[in-house]
Amino acid sequence: MKVGIIGGGQLARMMIQASSRLPLDTVILDPKKNSPAGLIGESIIAELNDPKALEELSNSCDIITYELEHLDLEILSSVLDPKKVFPNLKILKIAQDRLLEKKYINDLDIDTANFRPISSIEDIENIQFDSDCFLKLRKSGFDGRGQLKVNDQKSLITGFQKFECLPAILEQCIEFDFECSIIVGRNKSDEYFFYPITENLHHNGILIHTKLLNNPALQKQAEDIARKIMGSSNYIGVMGIEFFNVSGNLIVNEIAPRVHNSGHWTIDGANCSQFELHLRCITNLEIPHEIQIQDVQMFNILGSMPNLASLSTETNIFIHDYKKSPRENRKIGHINGVSLNNAQIQAIKQLLLL
Amino acid sequence: MKVGIIGGGQLARMMIQASSRLPLDTVILDPKKNSPAGLIGESIIAELNDPKALEELSNSCDIITYELEHLDLEILSSVLDPKKVFPNLKILKIAQDRLLEKKYINDLDIDTANFRPISSIEDIENIQFDSDCFLKLRKSGFDGRGQLKVNDQKSLITGFQKFECLPAILEQCIEFDFECSIIVGRNKSDEYFFYPITENLHHNGILIHTKLLNNPALQKQAEDIARKIMGSSNYIGVMGIEFFNVSGNLIVNEIAPRVHNSGHWTIDGANCSQFELHLRCITNLEIPHEIQIQDVQMFNILGSMPNLASLSTETNIFIHDYKKSPRENRKIGHINGVSLNNAQIQAIKQLLLL
Repeated sequence: MKVGIIGGGQLARMMIQASSRLPLDTVILDPKKNSPAGLIGESIIAELNDPKALEELSNSCDIITYELEHLDLEILSSVLDPKKVFPNLKILKIAQDRLLEKKYINDLDIDTANFRPISSIEDIENIQFDSDCFLKLRKSGFDGRGQLKVNDQKSLITGFQKFECLPAILEQCIEFDFECSIIVGRNKSDEYFFYPITENLHHNGILIHTKLLNNPALQKQAEDIARKIMGSSNYIGVMGIEFFNVSGNLIVNEIAPRVHNSGHWTIDGANCSQFELHLRCITNLEIPHEIQIQDVQMFNILGSMPNLASLSTETNIFIHDYKKSPRENRKIGHINGVSLNNAQIQAIKQLLLL
Repeated sequence: MKVGIIGGGQLARMMIQASSRLPLDTVILDPKKNSPAGLIGESIIAELNDPKALEELSNSCDIITYELEHLDLEILSSVLDPKKVFPNLKILKIAQDRLLEKKYINDLDIDTANFRPISSIEDIENIQFDSDCFLKLRKSGFDGRGQLKVNDQKSLITGFQKFECLPAILEQCIEFDFECSIIVGRNKSDEYFFYPITENLHHNGILIHTKLLNNPALQKQAEDIARKIMGSSNYIGVMGIEFFNVSGNLIVNEIAPRVHNSGHWTIDGANCSQFELHLRCITNLEIPHEIQIQDVQMFNILGSMPNLASLSTETNIFIHDYKKSPRENRKIGHINGVSLNNAQIQAIKQLLLL
């Protein structure tokens, strides 16, 4: 069986690595010849929205998946056989658009931050601010891009104009205790595989550190929310759901219809990684019924690769290099550490300037 | 740090896969563009004994290793910096030649089958047969090739002539209880990592099935033998040592100065695979001080890939496909099974025609 992956970044790379013990072939679609995934597997070199290339991908594969949300849905829908695409294009459409996403979630009786759409300058006129807010573009934002903090009409108008008056939402800032997420897989037989929720630390909107939360009450809430979202959308594959924890209540921040950065720890800390799980779900391979987890933490490597020689010799520290060229704040790798001692944690934080 | 691997077969492929969580780059040397390893990593496409290509490999890498023994030692010695090559070329020379190998082992007071060199027809004249013997070419044999059973002067002469009177040895057939092997890593600090010994089943001289032996007495014998061989030769990297078990005494059959087929179970059954261990040893990364092993068995897939759909869904069965074209008796993949039940073992054996 052959799986086509739209996008050749690190998520596709780690899917290919996970496929090495599964009876699956893979091919990615990416405009760059030396993409992180293209370096280790078969590629079709073309723009992600090139109809001919998508058609070639579709014809040569039994199953199609994607590693990023910002794809042209109209082209995908017209070219791909929807029966082959997982997660389905309906949930992709929702996840692409912060307004549709929040409405979908609220309609399931799941809490999000309060929000309202901002489509024109007129929408701003009657807004009263009683707290800080985020102005967020409805589409195309990630890693903290496409969002601005605003606290009055003036800053909101300036921000909206800075965003070229593109459709946006105004979202109330949540005062949270911490951010957390769950990674969940669901297969075609309505079976779920839940990883333990993790606490996630961000810096300028970019994830930098993930560690396991051992909190059964929050775990149950997160699993219930995941079941509602994934069941109602007939979701097949792995999903990441990000939350704010507000005094023990989980508020959904956003969903990612794909493997997720906060699940990279699963490569070295679980019996089945999120990448293997995703492939198992979408290709109808059995999914594990038992989960084995180690005490693991994940640290993102941003910008450029520091000299990790002092860490790399340790047998409980695993360095994953995505083979990307350096660029400020770019995610170019991550470190998984199993049962780290305090000295190791300090050493990692120092080397990564955390 | 960059590791150059001479040869691009499945052993190199699995080394590259193991490198994904280590701070290492790899490049292989192989004459074929689509070698099993070349499909997933950087390649230099040239003959294995091409001095210019070897020089390029040596210049671009910090460390050089190899995945097969039958290399031209003279060229390697003249082109490669010996300080970069692991395992060292001295042990490679010994392992290439059954006569040197057996002498080396016997000189360490380790038992092998009785043997004598056969270099010419005259050597055969005075031989008395009191048991069946194998005539084996000193060089270039593997997977049962380059050896013949003989039981009298006539069949020995015929065999020797069939082998074009190339240097050979005559080796007494051993009546053994079973064949077994140990995979061991040794690093530059004289630290060892021993996997549990496995019982190995062969068919026409080709390994087909490996399962863990839980036998502390044999384990200790195997480890003692490995220490003698590896310590005396200042061996760095992973070595496979094959034994005959004769009433509880281990007789060395042969050594492999590389990762070994009977260690493929370690990918899914150990905290550190033999491929990761080899890379750790030769690049001076720390090696694990604790071993965690699951109850795992390995089955080779020979010839062509059968339809494994019925197995591939199971979460405790891992299928490794080397992406080789089919050919009779060729090793094209293997299956690792963790805590298999009897029905699964029967299903695997049926599908693989074992």
